[in-house]
Amino acid sequence: MRIVITGGGGFLGFKLAKALLARGELAAADGRASKISRLVLLDGAFPAELPPDPRLEVVTGDVSDAATVARVVTPDTASLFHLAAVVSGAAEADFDLGLRVNFQGTRLLVEQLRGCAAPPRVVFASSVAAFGGELPAVLDDSTLANPQTSYGTQKVIGEYLISDYSRKGFIQGCSLRLPTIVVRPGKPNAAASSFASGILREPLNGVVADCPVAPETGVWLLSPKRVTEAFIHAHELPAAAWGTRRVLNLPGITVSVADMIAAMGRVAGEAVAARVRWTRDERIRAIVRTWPARFETPRAQSLGFKHDPDIETVIRDYIADEGV
Amino acid sequence: MRIVITGGGGFLGFKLAKALLARGELAAADGRASKISRLVLLDGAFPAELPPDPRLEVVTGDVSDAATVARVVTPDTASLFHLAAVVSGAAEADFDLGLRVNFQGTRLLVEQLRGCAAPPRVVFASSVAAFGGELPAVLDDSTLANPQTSYGTQKVIGEYLISDYSRKGFIQGCSLRLPTIVVRPGKPNAAASSFASGILREPLNGVVADCPVAPETGVWLLSPKRVTEAFIHAHELPAAAWGTRRVLNLPGITVSVADMIAAMGRVAGEAVAARVRWTRDERIRAIVRTWPARFETPRAQSLGFKHDPDIETVIRDYIADEGV
Repeated sequence: MRIVITGGGGFLGFKLAKALLARGELAAADGRASKISRLVLLDGAFPAELPPDPRLEVVTGDVSDAATVARVVTPDTASLFHLAAVVSGAAEADFDLGLRVNFQGTRLLVEQLRGCAAPPRVVFASSVAAFGGELPAVLDDSTLANPQTSYGTQKVIGEYLISDYSRKGFIQGCSLRLPTIVVRPGKPNAAASSFASGILREPLNGVVADCPVAPETGVWLLSPKRVTEAFIHAHELPAAAWGTRRVLNLPGITVSVADMIAAMGRVAGEAVAARVRWTRDERIRAIVRTWPARFETPRAQSLGFKHDPDIETVIRDYIADEGV
Repeated sequence: MRIVITGGGGFLGFKLAKALLARGELAAADGRASKISRLVLLDGAFPAELPPDPRLEVVTGDVSDAATVARVVTPDTASLFHLAAVVSGAAEADFDLGLRVNFQGTRLLVEQLRGCAAPPRVVFASSVAAFGGELPAVLDDSTLANPQTSYGTQKVIGEYLISDYSRKGFIQGCSLRLPTIVVRPGKPNAAASSFASGILREPLNGVVADCPVAPETGVWLLSPKRVTEAFIHAHELPAAAWGTRRVLNLPGITVSVADMIAAMGRVAGEAVAARVRWTRDERIRAIVRTWPARFETPRAQSLGFKHDPDIETVIRDYIADEGV
């Protein structure tokens, strides 16, 4: 069975790729477990060190390019994990770039998937940036999507496309709204949420970090480990589990920036926690202010999705995984 | 000031055009009343009799054609009423046609509007087909859009595009979710809701009508007169009235098919009401079943939008307007 991951060179996509290679099989279009014979990663760039696995194929390119999409999504494709995106800060700064990659790229992908031999399974990485405007104190599965960023808008449009292509039987798709992923390894990126990992990652690696938001800012978060599990769990669920609603808010935990830093102090020492500097950034604050921090996710939990037990475990998992 | 109506040759678009010509002015981009100097109607076909008005210009073409859109939406365009669409039944029967006109057409229009000298006012005719799946008994302004038709999906995607283009300051847009419009004059069309007008219009014109749904089927409806008023009222509202939410469920009244026919009997006589035949159509029933029939619309009412007083008034208005 042939699997494609867009954004497969990015942190989450590549982590998912490694998890799939280790797992070795996935549910095929007919629901039965099938061996992964080919895993294609599409991205603009890849880590220097790729696993020497004969199943692995990397394609350098862009999801908004029709020829690339046609080359990657071949008729024998059984599953697509669609993670490629221009992140929130970048899509806000460059409207046309966000529209091309996040909107037109998703459109090209679902259209190409119609040409597959059997309706492929599709897992789309959406985001809680779907929510904005006037919100209840605690969001739940009935809260309507009213994004106040172009990134959030483009993600929601992708959800609707994937839901309708699924309803029509062209694909078997679902969309997962990801909380902020903490702790991301590597370098800061252009996402407005980049600080949420940076205020832990930089100090744990001996570097001073700037925190652009107030200490009481709440973050709805999920670890890289749990979100990778969620992508695979969503893929394996039978189509009937989704019913008429193929969009899901993933579980997470709500932690304030101050509590994140305090937990880091308990896990790694006060000297590490003291490496956070408070440096207001009004542009970041304006975006983050529109994001919700508290959710109830009964539907995801009843479908078997899991959140992290607490922020200290998230920090300890990061230290263990990344060897800092 | 230059105004464009897509779908301007259709029943609602043409009625709106006549109302705008009679009114003579609209709020310009800066909010001040301005004379209508040019009214451009874009559609695939037009009524044989056009008002001999020098302000009126008709363009035969398709909103999914980039050259046509560029020709119609010139940089001096001050306002767009976007009513053109492939209707629900047709978009369900021909997925690609719906996608091209309802999705790609709206995308082309908003993109072209970015090139206008001042951010134009845009009123988009969306639909309660946005709603579907598991629904509360009474829907309200907080009910999330979960369409179970391609038409509904394409309308919702248009709403999100118009909201984000507005948030970015490229346009001043809003989307109105129309109830089923009753009584439409003329011939039946491919909309799954066509019967809702047909069971009144045909008998009132001496013709037998087939009703494909059960007598107890509820219809959430608004008259042509009220929806024309709503388009103009939405256009005239200041941008600040919308806040962070530029999508609105219009007010309406809930009437069962049986009550519609009974009211026709009271207004026009039992012999007229007896012209309705009960002819089950499972395809129509399957679509209409996903549509909600009961709403509370406090936000629309607080913004000054109005519903019809009752179904008898709707029938009497039709008889008076169409001279049957």
